[in-house]
Amino acid sequence: MEPTLEDVSSAIDSTWVMVSAILVIMMQIGFALLEAGSTRMKNAGHIAGKTVLTFGICSIAFWSLGFGLTFGDGNSLIGLTGFFFDGSAEQAAASFSNFSGASVPITILFLFQLAFAAVSLAIAWGGFAERAKLSVYFIFSILFTVLIYPVVGHWVWGGGWLAELGMQDFAGSTVVHLQGAIVALVATLLLKPRIGKYNRDGSSNLIPGHNQVYSVLGVLFLWIGWFGFNGGSTLGASDGFFGYVAVTTNLATAAGAIAALAISWIVMGKADIPSMLNGVLSALVAITASCAFVDPWAAVVIGAVSGILTFYTSVWFDRMGIDDPIFAFSVHGVAGIWGTLSTGLFATPALAEKVGVGGAGLFYGGGFHQLGIQALGLAGSIAYVFAVSYIVLAALKAIMGLRVSREEELVGLDVSEHGIYGYPELLQPGRVQQPAASPKSIAQVSN
Amino acid sequence: MEPTLEDVSSAIDSTWVMVSAILVIMMQIGFALLEAGSTRMKNAGHIAGKTVLTFGICSIAFWSLGFGLTFGDGNSLIGLTGFFFDGSAEQAAASFSNFSGASVPITILFLFQLAFAAVSLAIAWGGFAERAKLSVYFIFSILFTVLIYPVVGHWVWGGGWLAELGMQDFAGSTVVHLQGAIVALVATLLLKPRIGKYNRDGSSNLIPGHNQVYSVLGVLFLWIGWFGFNGGSTLGASDGFFGYVAVTTNLATAAGAIAALAISWIVMGKADIPSMLNGVLSALVAITASCAFVDPWAAVVIGAVSGILTFYTSVWFDRMGIDDPIFAFSVHGVAGIWGTLSTGLFATPALAEKVGVGGAGLFYGGGFHQLGIQALGLAGSIAYVFAVSYIVLAALKAIMGLRVSREEELVGLDVSEHGIYGYPELLQPGRVQQPAASPKSIAQVSN
Amino acid sequence: MEPTLEDVSSAIDSTWVMVSAILVIMMQIGFALLEAGSTRMKNAGHIAGKTVLTFGICSIAFWSLGFGLTFGDGNSLIGLTGFFFDGSAEQAAASFSNFSGASVPITILFLFQLAFAAVSLAIAWGGFAERAKLSVYFIFSILFTVLIYPVVGHWVWGGGWLAELGMQDFAGSTVVHLQGAIVALVATLLLKPRIGKYNRDGSSNLIPGHNQVYSVLGVLFLWIGWFGFNGGSTLGASDGFFGYVAVTTNLATAAGAIAALAISWIVMGKADIPSMLNGVLSALVAITASCAFVDPWAAVVIGAVSGILTFYTSVWFDRMGIDDPIFAFSVHGVAGIWGTLSTGLFATPALAEKVGVGGAGLFYGGGFHQLGIQALGLAGSIAYVFAVSYIVLAALKAIMGLRVSREEELVGLDVSEHGIYGYPELLQPGRVQQPAASPKSIAQVSN
Repeated sequence: MEPTLEDVSSAIDSTWVMVSAILVIMMQIGFALLEAGSTRMKNAGHIAGKTVLTFGICSIAFWSLGFGLTFGDGNSLIGLTGFFFDGSAEQAAASFSNFSGASVPITILFLFQLAFAAVSLAIAWGGFAERAKLSVYFIFSILFTVLIYPVVGHWVWGGGWLAELGMQDFAGSTVVHLQGAIVALVATLLLKPRIGKYNRDGSSNLIPGHNQVYSVLGVLFLWIGWFGFNGGSTLGASDGFFGYVAVTTNLATAAGAIAALAISWIVMGKADIPSMLNGVLSALVAITASCAFVDPWAAVVIGAVSGILTFYTSVWFDRMGIDDPIFAFSVHGVAGIWGTLSTGLFATPALAEKVGVGGAGLFYGGGFHQLGIQALGLAGSIAYVFAVSYIVLAALKAIMGLRVSREEELVGLDVSEHGIYGYPELLQPGRVQQPAASPKSIAQVSN
Repeated sequence: MEPTLEDVSSAIDSTWVMVSAILVIMMQIGFALLEAGSTRMKNAGHIAGKTVLTFGICSIAFWSLGFGLTFGDGNSLIGLTGFFFDGSAEQAAASFSNFSGASVPITILFLFQLAFAAVSLAIAWGGFAERAKLSVYFIFSILFTVLIYPVVGHWVWGGGWLAELGMQDFAGSTVVHLQGAIVALVATLLLKPRIGKYNRDGSSNLIPGHNQVYSVLGVLFLWIGWFGFNGGSTLGASDGFFGYVAVTTNLATAAGAIAALAISWIVMGKADIPSMLNGVLSALVAITASCAFVDPWAAVVIGAVSGILTFYTSVWFDRMGIDDPIFAFSVHGVAGIWGTLSTGLFATPALAEKVGVGGAGLFYGGGFHQLGIQALGLAGSIAYVFAVSYIVLAALKAIMGLRVSREEELVGLDVSEHGIYGYPELLQPGRVQQPAASPKSIAQVSN
Repeated sequence: MEPTLEDVSSAIDSTWVMVSAILVIMMQIGFALLEAGSTRMKNAGHIAGKTVLTFGICSIAFWSLGFGLTFGDGNSLIGLTGFFFDGSAEQAAASFSNFSGASVPITILFLFQLAFAAVSLAIAWGGFAERAKLSVYFIFSILFTVLIYPVVGHWVWGGGWLAELGMQDFAGSTVVHLQGAIVALVATLLLKPRIGKYNRDGSSNLIPGHNQVYSVLGVLFLWIGWFGFNGGSTLGASDGFFGYVAVTTNLATAAGAIAALAISWIVMGKADIPSMLNGVLSALVAITASCAFVDPWAAVVIGAVSGILTFYTSVWFDRMGIDDPIFAFSVHGVAGIWGTLSTGLFATPALAEKVGVGGAGLFYGGGFHQLGIQALGLAGSIAYVFAVSYIVLAALKAIMGLRVSREEELVGLDVSEHGIYGYPELLQPGRVQQPAASPKSIAQVSN
């Protein structure tokens, strides 16, 4: 049977979105490297391994319930159809009217959206690192994928009330990054800081990650994966717009890297690599909402501001007693908020019209209208995710406990949760690893 | 010259299969990480390096002979044309009538098929790890690519007798994975266990891999590469079916990860990461044959069963005195058999008709017909590969020896085969590395 | 609005070039792994981290100036329009007549070309490794992207005088690889060898890299990225020619790996992994110019010759007192020259006509005409890059110094430039790391 022009156009859109889904799933490699590299040797096998486990659980939970709750037909608050996704045209027609006009098969949209949910979950784990029980990863993976992510996802992308208002969140500064970041923040509050992180006088110790090469590689994988994350969110290749989105994404990220390294050099007297890596990620997070709405020069500004904001806020959270080992809240939360607001400032009328969501930003003659919608979306999303994740994690804490014992934390989660070190030739079982922390702060290390 | 609709349709199919070929070649990164991470530091440079060498040799051998033997025109047992592939339309027309209707250029089909042969070879090396001579890698790479892989490949995919019978092996549970696994098994039998693996009373020691982060990353790369492996085996993008295949693949894998971790937790009292990783891979292997033939729920069942089967069989092979350092036979062999049979159980009539190979499985009203064909294909493939690889490797053993000397094995293959450690700042030349093994079994480690 | 056939054809070309751009950007992961793995632990965090920084700087410099200088309209020496690329159709029409007939949006061409410039810059850093100041990376990233790369780029690919002559450099053996390599050579001359590299009698010590697994993975990422590098240089997917290019690329590389390993085994008595890795890369570099112009058998020859040439020249440069830690000049320079000449020898009339650049090579009846153009292009490019990079780097040396102090080099750049080791649990701050060098040469190690 001869293909029609529409078939072929659909096939090319499908290929680009499929490639994008694969790139976004590849971000799990980035998170595994970043998180393992930014923590200590005694926990490295656990941290890498839990990435596989939680991606697996998220896959099953999103397939059975999460996809329907997020994108199924329902009301302005939640989807209520399309559970146990079977890939059939019948289920698509009956349960997913959101996707009725899509040129891409629903199977590929499912994979792409699953990859996004899994990124949000991976961000959340940053706040649990080096002290949470493995059983918490097991159970909370399900609860996040079913109770938390689908709600804000439905509001913004599934036809919910924020979609109706015209909130601009192109690829998920709020939906994906801020949601994960708020859960991470809640986790740090409930889990309390790692042993050795704070002194009696409240001053903070640096607990350096064990492998900066891993951390850098992790960030590079995330940068590359983001070409699928943002570029694939065009949901097609037909008009070449995904190229524009990739250009603004890359420019913002480059600016974030440079700005963050420069500010660390100026403030701390040394060019701090973890600060630069946070700058890269925060710029990626910020441009995620706005990549399709802004001019290239604005992307540079958004990225640079993001890198600087994240530098200062990460220092500030550290001083406030919040032990967030992978800087999840500074990187994904602060930059998620900034990015969501940035499109309310910089969105151009032409691009807002092209994308078909919302209107121009404050600096482009749109007044405060779009900015107000963005702020409202943020307030609603933060309130929901904070409240529900607090309730869920506090309940888990009461029922089963979130944190391993002091002895287990000292020996490391590789041994306590899995029975063997991830580096058995470098670490000896039976010998308690000392916290690597000795310098009092990043600034002091650099002297 | 204006392109025609057919040209454009071919271009999009070509792009997807090319991307898939690249993803499958990227699986070499996965194997290098998995194999290096699962073995000891003293062999790490050797193991990573041999991946590059053997992919290179396989590329030349498949180009000169293997591609023609597998896919060239011939009889029902072997292809006999198309050697020294030159990419020309003339050679394609004269020698590869299998591909005469393909919408993808033969150059891209060549790369895709080369990537598959190289995966099969990479699996085989698992059985040789930490004790085989480098010269064996050199020579056996050629022999495998020319004498072993093309025969079963031709039977199932090149128009041979199993293709004529309608054997369902969509992306190669038998052709790629089981073939490699049987060679690995033969290698373990001929090479004998590593020094320190077994005690005089026959009990087994755990020899843990040196870097679980590598092992995890390796598995993640393989998981991601498999979207090309299975998804690309549609050989096109035109009807979007590759999305369906990717969904069943991912569901099975997720179920395999969870099932294997859970069973290890229940049986051993600790959540064993290597067992989970084996579960992921075994599920990938199993769903490889059936991904295009089964419903999503069946994919979950196939993956979960595979994870559990591989857990028990890997323990059992270990107890039987078979030292298979990367669990190649349990992961790729047992799951390859299960996966090949699974489509004879779960294939739906609609999907079998869509793919155009074989019929419905036992649970979908197909009776034992398809299951019988699958079993026959397995029996024939196992018999051929076992016999030929045994003869070839036994001959190499007699002529040149397969295994390094005791001293070389103790000092490690990095030094013995390549003159320097892969980690020269962590390992000192001249000092013999002790086998890292101290615990008697996985189960004991976890107490 | 219904898409036209031309729209759909453009969308598929765009998708392939976008995927290629992503693959080429992924080569930064390859360089980070290769360069970190090939140097010492005390510099690993610095080396990985600077990859991110310099890619960021290159992105901003190429966006603001480099892209317009290379591809903007101008004269036969340089482009003079299209600065601060904004992705608009207006700027494309007004400033980039080179791209007026392209089926791919200029945004995607921008990303693809940025990725190439960044590869050239990454190659250059090889010559600076383990002793240059971080500030040099900052400043020279800008100068290279603005003063050096665009000139030869414009000559060959931007409509300059070498383009008019019909120089064949399909994907940049000269434009990308040789340029980077010459800068690396100049850097080694101005920076002088690392402490401990040479003895008083002029003999050379081996300073082995700290992690051969990283080096191997880096090379595998580069190999894979090269499918985008060469395959994407077709700038489209419509006629399937990218598949042919990928086949010749892979064959040459395989041959380079085998030839280099074999020659090291024969000459040094041990199969040297770094030599094999250099063979892989040099073959990739060599086939870069000629991949679209030559027959598959010629690709095998070009790759094998390249592997051998690089083996001997790397030994020779080492003996000449040139301390080039990542072998940048042997791999990218010598092979870049060989590759650029190779198409003047092996280009077939049919392929030269298909690509539409130049004519047949010496062995295919073209006489010395094409070979002469290739040699002229090499001479011009080498002269320009050597002169300008020498002037720029010598000026930087006079103004700010290129090299860290002796104490900083001994303690390592992780601590001196960034305040903390990249492996803080394996290296203790305050303790000076000894040069790992003890064996006198590669050959002696292997005894």
